Amino acid sequence: MESKEIEEGLQFVPKFNADGLITAIAQDAETGQVLMVAYMNREALDRTIATGRATYYSRSRQKLWKKGEQSGHFQTVKQILVDCDQDCLILKVAVDAGQCHVGYQSCFYRALKPGSEKDLQLIAEKTYDPDAAYGK
Amino acid sequence: MESKEIEEGLQFVPKFNADGLITAIAQDAETGQVLMVAYMNREALDRTIATGRATYYSRSRQKLWKKGEQSGHFQTVKQILVDCDQDCLILKVAVDAGQCHVGYQSCFYRALKPGSEKDLQLIAEKTYDPDAAYGK
Repeated sequence: MESKEIEEGLQFVPKFNADGLITAIAQDAETGQVLMVAYMNREALDRTIATGRATYYSRSRQKLWKKGEQSGHFQTVKQILVDCDQDCLILKVAVDAGQCHVGYQSCFYRALKPGSEKDLQLIAEKTYDPDAAYGK
Repeated sequence: MESKEIEEGLQFVPKFNADGLITAIAQDAETGQVLMVAYMNREALDRTIATGRATYYSRSRQKLWKKGEQSGHFQTVKQILVDCDQDCLILKVAVDAGQCHVGYQSCFYRALKPGSEKDLQLIAEKTYDPDAAYGK
């Protein structure tokens, strides 16, 4: 398929990389907050579309990962967006409190300190106790 | 560095992948709209921090890509966020109209049609004429 057709067309032809994965950004459908970035293989994407619940592919565990299967913090998919060259997805999701396994609502709970190249600052507070949620 | 230190610490230790790249999401600092997803190598990240203007690494052209150098649509970086395992960045940016090379404000101008697995629908209108901006 030609580049122009991929970019301007209305056929969904997601482009998986050499490892068979596509980047997927989970964004809170209500607030616009970016919650996490993960990866999907074809099967994870198909399951996400079919079930309306986000399923990713865990690169560390090398298997499908239904978000929330351990923690209970599921993601209900409201809309799936794709970018111009169709190698990246945004999942607009409805979520409860606590999406990151560290205990924060978003995985992006730190920012580079203004004027620094190596120091971070916290920009959020924990919203749940991950030890309790994951039964550690 | 241990996983806990990377996740809970306040030291910025961005994790570049096997190709020396880290995923960077540009998000409109005002509206929360995700504009594009690109990649940075160490040099692109250093330049971005030093100049306050987003510089990426173009995988197709295999060189640094100062966003806006051709189109004039620069990104002024307001904040840089990092995720739990520090392998993904969000750049909160201030931008003018038209960030995607296809002519839209965001690269994510299409969504999967509700109930479909393969049909997209447009969810945005073009904000500028890319042929004029890129001088084609």
